[in-house]
Amino acid sequence: MDVALLGGAMTSFGSRDGWVRDLASEAALACLDDAKIAPADIDHLYVSNMASGEFEGQTGVMNALAHDIGAVPAYAQRVGQTSASGGAGLYAAWQSVASGASEMTLLVGVEKMTHLSTADAGDIIASLTHSVEYSHGVTLPSFAGLTARAYLDRFDVPRESLAHVAVKNHANACKNPDAQFHKAVDVETVLSSPVVADPLRLYDYCPITDGSAALVFCPASLAREYTDEFVTVAGIGGATDTHVVHERADPTWMGAVADSARQTFEMAGCAPEEVDVAELHDMVTVLEVLQLEAFGFADRGEGWRLAVEGTTALDGDLPVNTSGGLKARGHPLGATGVAQAVEIYRQLLGNAGDRQVEAERGLTCNVGGFGNCVTSALFEVDT
Amino acid sequence: MDVALLGGAMTSFGSRDGWVRDLASEAALACLDDAKIAPADIDHLYVSNMASGEFEGQTGVMNALAHDIGAVPAYAQRVGQTSASGGAGLYAAWQSVASGASEMTLLVGVEKMTHLSTADAGDIIASLTHSVEYSHGVTLPSFAGLTARAYLDRFDVPRESLAHVAVKNHANACKNPDAQFHKAVDVETVLSSPVVADPLRLYDYCPITDGSAALVFCPASLAREYTDEFVTVAGIGGATDTHVVHERADPTWMGAVADSARQTFEMAGCAPEEVDVAELHDMVTVLEVLQLEAFGFADRGEGWRLAVEGTTALDGDLPVNTSGGLKARGHPLGATGVAQAVEIYRQLLGNAGDRQVEAERGLTCNVGGFGNCVTSALFEVDT
Repeated sequence: MDVALLGGAMTSFGSRDGWVRDLASEAALACLDDAKIAPADIDHLYVSNMASGEFEGQTGVMNALAHDIGAVPAYAQRVGQTSASGGAGLYAAWQSVASGASEMTLLVGVEKMTHLSTADAGDIIASLTHSVEYSHGVTLPSFAGLTARAYLDRFDVPRESLAHVAVKNHANACKNPDAQFHKAVDVETVLSSPVVADPLRLYDYCPITDGSAALVFCPASLAREYTDEFVTVAGIGGATDTHVVHERADPTWMGAVADSARQTFEMAGCAPEEVDVAELHDMVTVLEVLQLEAFGFADRGEGWRLAVEGTTALDGDLPVNTSGGLKARGHPLGATGVAQAVEIYRQLLGNAGDRQVEAERGLTCNVGGFGNCVTSALFEVDT
Repeated sequence: MDVALLGGAMTSFGSRDGWVRDLASEAALACLDDAKIAPADIDHLYVSNMASGEFEGQTGVMNALAHDIGAVPAYAQRVGQTSASGGAGLYAAWQSVASGASEMTLLVGVEKMTHLSTADAGDIIASLTHSVEYSHGVTLPSFAGLTARAYLDRFDVPRESLAHVAVKNHANACKNPDAQFHKAVDVETVLSSPVVADPLRLYDYCPITDGSAALVFCPASLAREYTDEFVTVAGIGGATDTHVVHERADPTWMGAVADSARQTFEMAGCAPEEVDVAELHDMVTVLEVLQLEAFGFADRGEGWRLAVEGTTALDGDLPVNTSGGLKARGHPLGATGVAQAVEIYRQLLGNAGDRQVEAERGLTCNVGGFGNCVTSALFEVDT
């Protein structure tokens, strides 16, 4: 069954007041408004969230949201996949409609984190890693440092190339009213920012973010009754890699991304060259580069060139992270994968404002942990 | 698409050593053994779990499990629906196969709780309720007390009738090697146990439990290649009720159970009278009674008679909670809904040992919160 996106919306990302439920309601209601449907039209509600219980002491967010927006008695479920909870939500919502269980599914990704210190939030995030690594103090930011060092050394890559990813994504975020940062940075700023995990520095990393994003999924046949132009899910997939990162033969190769990409392209019946725009999981600059390689947008060891040469810029052949990405739009864990798809939804329908690119086919990739679990999805315009 | 259960297994329930991951692995490997498949045959892995992060500081359990049992690169996702996470897992696994995304899905429900005090575990569980109720100190056990009082008063029900539910389920658990309690109780014991929330007493409530249960789902057409006799999912559904329990017009009517039941029976094309055995969510005795009414197994205000008159006993017309139920098999939140289906799976295939009943069609009902979200499923034997 062809599955369509009938609506999409997001809150502004950043440091937000309110509870996780308030953010989720704001995105949900804006999304229903965008889809021109009522809460009572929803029969299934999925909430992508990593850790509302740990962050805020609330574990019934999906039930609260169904209640708060007036969607009861719609079925409600939480979808979790750590930092890829949003991407897993896309997959769950797609399955809900494709299986025939649902005629109208609302997916809401949400996370509220900034009321905690970065250290406390970081401790909760680190609980997604394997205990044999976590117990030695290895966290996601330090994995990134180790991986960046290995990548730079093996392929003789200039350090400043990674900074270009941050520069590009900050520039894009300046054109996205919903982004956390509206602050352009240059290569020098990135390279002189404080060291986090050598060789990576503060501006290589995404921030701690509050926010929510939402999408409505329905059969394409039903979407046609509501609107002439809509977006469909052409391909979708997901895969895991070892939960213990140090067991990977090559930590610079994102195996789960490659597996997920293969599934996604096969289902869509298309090749990497046919993708017009992509939102990749740039939790840290080096991850955008490694994903470009795992998706086949660049050869091994060559992904770093795309930001340097402008290929992934707004006016390049393959604009990547037009939203600003996790780096500058922000990364509210459970919301991120949904926000990625909201950006593609807006780009494909020509609603991306000052950052609009020409695109008929757009890709999202959401990464849990350090590539421990990945989902990807390919969206097309149906006219 | 017809979806089959190719295998099912569970750990013993109770106070268990080890981490949540150890329990999940134990159930998963036993289940793969029962299904006669290898970890590498699995393409999708769903882990039903309410609160491993809060209970144990681990949030990446699905990725850890994929790693630990050798299922990488299978896609892995966590399914959450508070105390109905297991039932939501059945629905997610069914959708995974029915949508065509998966050919072989492993569902593992798991929770590890007994290393915490009952008070601390209870605080975490209470986080699933609405903040406007939680902040006034209302917890699930106290909701049960209020509801039992309303039910007994309105329908002029004898208090001791609820005790018969506990007596029956404890008796059944004595015949279930995997159950937490192997201790028969009589009505007098229940009625003289300490008051928890008047009129309910200690033996009206389920315990705090560790445990895990697992099932393999695949297309029925594929199951036929593995085995001559298997169980299929005939119907499945889910629904929410108000998250604020005090907003319900009638707290003695489980609206979400009735909604979920209607969906399940409609999909299966059968009526309540055609159900041979059922596992209901007896977190507290009165809930089994209310579910019997919401499913249409008894008229309003008459559900209490079924345990008193022996209708729901092992040798009755509709055996309910042959496993011992949440009450005496135990209630490891995320594992419960899966364990319910494992019991039905065993009953339908004639593998229920001393508690075996005659059944070709069995029902499960898993309740989140106090009826805030419900899933139900109907299983049949395919021969």
